[in-house]
Amino acid sequence: MITGKNYLGNKQLDKGTKTYKTFNPLLNIENEFVFVEATSEEIDEAVHLASEAFKVFRTISGEKKAAFLNAIADEILALNDELIQTYCKESGLPEGRAKGERGRTVFQLRSFADLVKEGSWVEASIDTAQPNREPLPKPDLRKLLIPLGPVVVFGASNFPLAYSTAGGDTAAALAAGCPVIVKSHPMHAGTGELVASAIIKAAEKTDMPNGVFSNLNSSGVEVGTQLVKHPEVKAVGFTGSLRGGRALYDLASQREEPIPVFAEMGSINPVIMLPNALKNRAEDLAKTYAGSIILGTGQFCTKPGLLLAIKSDALTQFISILSKEIVKIEPTCMLHPNIIGAYENNKSKMISQAGLSVVSDFENDVQTNYAKQAITTVEGQTFLENTNLHQEVFGPFSMVVQCQDKEQLELIISKLEGQLTGTLIADNEASEYPGLISALQNRVGRIIYNGVPTGVEVCPSMVHGGPYPASTDSRFTAVGINSIKRWVRPFSYQDWPNELLPDELKNENPLGISRLVDNKQTNDSI
Amino acid sequence: MITGKNYLGNKQLDKGTKTYKTFNPLLNIENEFVFVEATSEEIDEAVHLASEAFKVFRTISGEKKAAFLNAIADEILALNDELIQTYCKESGLPEGRAKGERGRTVFQLRSFADLVKEGSWVEASIDTAQPNREPLPKPDLRKLLIPLGPVVVFGASNFPLAYSTAGGDTAAALAAGCPVIVKSHPMHAGTGELVASAIIKAAEKTDMPNGVFSNLNSSGVEVGTQLVKHPEVKAVGFTGSLRGGRALYDLASQREEPIPVFAEMGSINPVIMLPNALKNRAEDLAKTYAGSIILGTGQFCTKPGLLLAIKSDALTQFISILSKEIVKIEPTCMLHPNIIGAYENNKSKMISQAGLSVVSDFENDVQTNYAKQAITTVEGQTFLENTNLHQEVFGPFSMVVQCQDKEQLELIISKLEGQLTGTLIADNEASEYPGLISALQNRVGRIIYNGVPTGVEVCPSMVHGGPYPASTDSRFTAVGINSIKRWVRPFSYQDWPNELLPDELKNENPLGISRLVDNKQTNDSI
Repeated sequence: MITGKNYLGNKQLDKGTKTYKTFNPLLNIENEFVFVEATSEEIDEAVHLASEAFKVFRTISGEKKAAFLNAIADEILALNDELIQTYCKESGLPEGRAKGERGRTVFQLRSFADLVKEGSWVEASIDTAQPNREPLPKPDLRKLLIPLGPVVVFGASNFPLAYSTAGGDTAAALAAGCPVIVKSHPMHAGTGELVASAIIKAAEKTDMPNGVFSNLNSSGVEVGTQLVKHPEVKAVGFTGSLRGGRALYDLASQREEPIPVFAEMGSINPVIMLPNALKNRAEDLAKTYAGSIILGTGQFCTKPGLLLAIKSDALTQFISILSKEIVKIEPTCMLHPNIIGAYENNKSKMISQAGLSVVSDFENDVQTNYAKQAITTVEGQTFLENTNLHQEVFGPFSMVVQCQDKEQLELIISKLEGQLTGTLIADNEASEYPGLISALQNRVGRIIYNGVPTGVEVCPSMVHGGPYPASTDSRFTAVGINSIKRWVRPFSYQDWPNELLPDELKNENPLGISRLVDNKQTNDSI
Repeated sequence: MITGKNYLGNKQLDKGTKTYKTFNPLLNIENEFVFVEATSEEIDEAVHLASEAFKVFRTISGEKKAAFLNAIADEILALNDELIQTYCKESGLPEGRAKGERGRTVFQLRSFADLVKEGSWVEASIDTAQPNREPLPKPDLRKLLIPLGPVVVFGASNFPLAYSTAGGDTAAALAAGCPVIVKSHPMHAGTGELVASAIIKAAEKTDMPNGVFSNLNSSGVEVGTQLVKHPEVKAVGFTGSLRGGRALYDLASQREEPIPVFAEMGSINPVIMLPNALKNRAEDLAKTYAGSIILGTGQFCTKPGLLLAIKSDALTQFISILSKEIVKIEPTCMLHPNIIGAYENNKSKMISQAGLSVVSDFENDVQTNYAKQAITTVEGQTFLENTNLHQEVFGPFSMVVQCQDKEQLELIISKLEGQLTGTLIADNEASEYPGLISALQNRVGRIIYNGVPTGVEVCPSMVHGGPYPASTDSRFTAVGINSIKRWVRPFSYQDWPNELLPDELKNENPLGISRLVDNKQTNDSI
């Protein structure tokens, strides 16, 4: 049941006076739930509870953390229809997507549960003592990864489940041993509260310390600002706009004690189509890309917003087919009136740029909150000279850049801002473009061959991140089990008595994990 | 031969007009060498060369990088007496220390050479495709660590070799595949130039791209500022003061494209002496700690600047012996008149704080640039209330905090700023202090049992870093092979053709490295 209250640990409170509702974009009406924004005192209490919980939670075994994470997954599934219906009402997304995203969320939680239950993720490393070494004895040193402390998570508008309340950031932080305070996303506060209730139930069932999780309602920037500035908060996870992510990064880096902010801020995801591929399969490519551009109404951070190729008849044909294919697809609803407003606004700004031509656009009216998809095109030189054309338009919009030649194409790629992904479409010709591929690799976090950038597989080899402004720290991924590395730090014990060491570092290796012992990776005891 | 010029890649230039000399603190005279500060144009050229060199250097094999790193070590050794003599003239440190530090520098270079030659450090990970997976096929994903780009390194005043021109930061960055631009430390610019010449020779002998290394003279903040703000610089390594490190961090985080700064900024390294240990061996402890406090004239970032214990007769005895032992040791020379000036100044400021008593100090005059060691003591409550007492005094100074009880001791530890190290001195009593140990662990990067914090072993299990202000990012270590992680980012290939993949990710595993293949760690091919 949605109450509209905040979760401060396992307690529900609504002392504030500022309220707000969520919105159903499909029906173009406000939803019935009323949410009470967290007060300054409630924020302080949530952080204090997290800080206290950390003292216990940081030392809890991997097995117990796994039980907690699996229980969260179970409780989310137990929310059943109420969760799916609320999700749809607050996002305008279809039920299939809701169920798919719930599946992804549960999969992520269980993946992290498996990871911490197995235990080797702490990168345990042991260098045994050499008391007789000359000129000085070598001490015994043992290292493992330990959690940073309370983490604040800002959910994403476009993933109410998989990158929000119990999404990737939260799952990774809890797995690491960090208590989490979620700044609930105002567009899907009901979905958020339901998921928060599942996390709290799971925490109680698996005997986690109170304060290991809190969920704070917020409709403006005040709650988030106070959280990021709070001295007891030790790291921040964010998925959203460049403006929002940068603002949080700036706040965090201006603190007396700066803290890491991992913000995943989107991308225009350049796609390079090489000449042979365009010649051989312009039509197929146009159809595939029409689908990728409008997937989820273009509301994915991996949407291909920039298609690049060298001018040719095949490129002209590709543009022509793409512009026809894209309007064959029925317009769909965006997440919120604010999102459609921003889309229309950014699209207009983009179209007003000199040299940009619209090759496909809807002339007819569409339903309220439904996005009209658009394809535009521009000359390579114009694109090079005007960085306004490099901005992301969140929604079903893409731009085809027609390059003069191979050199111009490579120059454009080398000058691009950092991106989440880059794609190469090629037919046995890639080896002729080493400079281009190298330049592309240097600007992105993931490079795709003959595919589409949409679809982010959750697996150890996935990198979802990239050079700024794709993310604030390219040294980490936001997706996959390695995203746990954002919330931990290495820690050394020197000459520490065996019985006082954590199990991961004891001579006996009671957890049977894989460890680097005197430079050899092994599961053996010492 | 020392020329006083800058190295812009393999070219030596001195177009500037600003010059400076280094200083011999032992003789209290200026050295003969004249250094010409890099001009703004020279800085730009060095960065541009690094950026161009990166295009080649980022793809060079581990074997070739290893040859380069080993050649640097060889060329440093070949500098022979000139290097050792210059080091001593520019630091006032004895020849034994110079040779020891050279050994450490060479060891670090060779350790990174071994690491990249073996190759598994890139954390290669492969998830093979599942074309028939439902509801969607799973793509082939392969991941490895790739270099960030040109790195700027600021050397340390207190380690002219091991943490300067070819020190830990440079060795790690070159091993990662990042070109390095060193902002030469003004106090040992001659030592720096000699080492730079060794790096350039090694680069030429092993056929590295021009610009893979540059060395820029600088006596003020201008060169460093321009370097950190340069758009083509992608990361910064720094070892030095909190003020300096924070200034660079602020510059880097205010850039249009923020970049990571790893600054190691020192620490007061709390040492907790538990009651039994103090009772059983106050005299031994006092002697050991007198030695650790004055080691290298107290000019180590791991110098024990804070000794804490619960009030007792044994503690009184410890203080009395420590204060006698410390003045038995002959004063020694500090690195530079500026360093001794800062020491005397910070010591005076500290001594003027209410409640602080000096229990041991030199009354007699000492030679110019020689530091008078000092031991002070303060009540726990006073220490808690006045954070001025928590500041580092770089030099042979330490403070004994006399705590009322166990609770006050734990409270003090939990309120401490972040530290590089924490030490516990205990005789079979540590298990009675779980809260204290936990609080200590939460504030430091390395915890030592019954030892001294000075002495930083170079091995995989070492963590040299810690919560702010010990470092700007506790998620990395500045010492040991894992320090390479500061300069790399994960990168994914999706469905990439085998022949175009880097060797580390090819099906055949031609390098024979250890890889995570479908969640199993293996050296096998696919």
